[in-house]
Amino acid sequence: MSNFLGYRCSTCDRQYLPDQVTYACPKDGGNLDVVLDYEHLKKKYQPADLIFAEDSLWRYLPLLPVSDPGGEGTPFRSAGWTPLYRLPRLADGLGLQDLWLKDESRNPTGSLKDRASAVVLARARELGREIVVTASTGNAGAALAGMAASLGRKAVIFAPRKAPPAKVAQLLVFGARVFLVDGSYDEAYDLTVKATEEFGWYCRNTGYNPFTMEGKKTTAFEIWETVLRQDKSSSRLTIFVSVGDGNIISGLHKGFKELQSLGWLAQMPRLIGVQAEGSSAIADAFQKGTEKITPVAAQTIADSISVDLPRDGVRALRAAKETGGLYVKVSDDEILESIAVLGLQGVFAEPAGAAAYSGLVKAAAGGLVSAADPVLVLNTGSGLKDVRAAMQAVGDAPVIEPTLEAVRRYLP
Amino acid sequence: MSNFLGYRCSTCDRQYLPDQVTYACPKDGGNLDVVLDYEHLKKKYQPADLIFAEDSLWRYLPLLPVSDPGGEGTPFRSAGWTPLYRLPRLADGLGLQDLWLKDESRNPTGSLKDRASAVVLARARELGREIVVTASTGNAGAALAGMAASLGRKAVIFAPRKAPPAKVAQLLVFGARVFLVDGSYDEAYDLTVKATEEFGWYCRNTGYNPFTMEGKKTTAFEIWETVLRQDKSSSRLTIFVSVGDGNIISGLHKGFKELQSLGWLAQMPRLIGVQAEGSSAIADAFQKGTEKITPVAAQTIADSISVDLPRDGVRALRAAKETGGLYVKVSDDEILESIAVLGLQGVFAEPAGAAAYSGLVKAAAGGLVSAADPVLVLNTGSGLKDVRAAMQAVGDAPVIEPTLEAVRRYLP
Repeated sequence: MSNFLGYRCSTCDRQYLPDQVTYACPKDGGNLDVVLDYEHLKKKYQPADLIFAEDSLWRYLPLLPVSDPGGEGTPFRSAGWTPLYRLPRLADGLGLQDLWLKDESRNPTGSLKDRASAVVLARARELGREIVVTASTGNAGAALAGMAASLGRKAVIFAPRKAPPAKVAQLLVFGARVFLVDGSYDEAYDLTVKATEEFGWYCRNTGYNPFTMEGKKTTAFEIWETVLRQDKSSSRLTIFVSVGDGNIISGLHKGFKELQSLGWLAQMPRLIGVQAEGSSAIADAFQKGTEKITPVAAQTIADSISVDLPRDGVRALRAAKETGGLYVKVSDDEILESIAVLGLQGVFAEPAGAAAYSGLVKAAAGGLVSAADPVLVLNTGSGLKDVRAAMQAVGDAPVIEPTLEAVRRYLP
Repeated sequence: MSNFLGYRCSTCDRQYLPDQVTYACPKDGGNLDVVLDYEHLKKKYQPADLIFAEDSLWRYLPLLPVSDPGGEGTPFRSAGWTPLYRLPRLADGLGLQDLWLKDESRNPTGSLKDRASAVVLARARELGREIVVTASTGNAGAALAGMAASLGRKAVIFAPRKAPPAKVAQLLVFGARVFLVDGSYDEAYDLTVKATEEFGWYCRNTGYNPFTMEGKKTTAFEIWETVLRQDKSSSRLTIFVSVGDGNIISGLHKGFKELQSLGWLAQMPRLIGVQAEGSSAIADAFQKGTEKITPVAAQTIADSISVDLPRDGVRALRAAKETGGLYVKVSDDEILESIAVLGLQGVFAEPAGAAAYSGLVKAAAGGLVSAADPVLVLNTGSGLKDVRAAMQAVGDAPVIEPTLEAVRRYLP
């Protein structure tokens, strides 16, 4: 009962059937969009027919290009359907009426990437591919390793040799086969693609496998179901999301476009991409008004969005452009400040997640959002994954003798 | 509409009204049990009347001794209602028919302690106490800091000076006022109690504040709602839970006893407490058949259950004794092994959570559970909080040149 029709290249518009291609466009290497039969779905169904009573992204199964994901009762099956918080104290400070934070750190392995890895693994299962591989040390690797372990499938991760041992440990705990590549991240990436061809593995690489975006688009579905569908106001939602490769903002855009195709979405939200100043290839292209993206030598504390060559840049540019959004750049100091600000609301965000909030602060100061605009900030991952950044974001605690007098000296 | 009648001392049975006492029994220092009007609830209500459609522990609000917790739309309001996984591959290996894992690492700050801190803070709000204090560096401190931040309330944490900087950073991110006490954990604990009296703060310390157990008992309610209520078989559930202070196993026991009082629970589950060999004060007393608990000099990799003097030992002993359960001791090596085994199921457990699974392995090998026994293991917290332990649990990854030949050397 899958409604998966095939693929369309995002740059040359060529179309392919589901079994004609696997990764990028064979003609020009462009990112492929998965095409679903939304005409059919629109004619026949209401939301209640297509949304299951399952507290995970799998509630939207009829809107995904897989038909039988499996993995019932495992962490794989509990990815997505993350909580939505209200931030009224921060809204007051920024002069906003409505401010939400969607907390992707509550996913099984602690980041939004679980959505992508879950749908890629469901696809691998349908294709009968036992081993899934990716180049990553960060959230994508952990997500692939964790979701694969849930299903008893094998994950292979190529990580640069300099990856922090703590992050490598997480991959190994999930039973992934990890190779530490004595070379740059780009060399690890290229090796992944070669190994995919040589050993018949299935490759999850972002911006290469079209199914990562299919997982990420479910974030848009949830924002629609929990915010937009409930909201009776006529104001358009503005969403702030951090951007590295560009695959998350592209996924949000695709999700909202699909809801429009179904006739379920009254107004397209405005998507504002936030990049770190030290990793701003997409933001720079947006400002120049070009779709030609020039790689940078990325350097930022926000490792999840630290990217030399964005692998999904063109669609990420269009996500902002076609929704009346824009790109904002933020500094590492602003990111650290936002980790502390969100912490005071009970949210421990990874630097990339905090960056999205820094983007809102900057946009609000610049008059790019107004009081009447409802705003949602996406926290893409857990601060527990990068405690070093948190340690830079906060001060030290005093050391005291175990006496009341010592305590009293530090009280206001 | 609170059904909170008062307290009963767990050692001398004296009863108190809600406003007569705050912490331990004034007569003998025993732990107080909160008493609710279950007779009234039983006569008037069915489960559907008392369980709200809220995806958090607050779904059981009528069964808690607070009436209006507040904090709508915050992480505080999303504590609890954690996922339940099935572990069929591990069940096969152990010769069991049904094996579940309830994953408390999916709580807002990554551990079961969020339940306790949430209910303590709801009580603080009703009492009009602005500042809540605890002695801890671990899960309890993070939970108090995070839940307090959600509500815009103040938390004070007394941590021993030797606390790992990474754990202190998490407390500081949540905006807690942290004091690093130049002394032992016991000195920090005593200072907390003194400061509570001196400064009019509200003290969350485990085994001192009766409301921590009220939060933890909701774990039992969820196990009932998701496992026991669904199950048509006549076999009794066996639950494995790691034990440090003893407050979690006591909370489980109280929760199940309350469900019996309501007439909703057909069979009391069997509670098996698991302690680390290096921190086994309660297990030792259980084996000796005494309620007199002798402190130890605790040393184990499972920091969350590393306890010299258990603060809730007597109730923890009874939880096993009165349910036909027992205590099991496991070594640090067995705990590390279980981190890796659970990782292969997609669950990244903290050492204390993995210890519960080690207890099951040992009990199964010793014939203490049989094939027909349905079993549930409680994972109390996230492995991301203690990556050092994970690094000991797994091997190293090979370093390779970026070539296919190098990859091939390591393939089977």
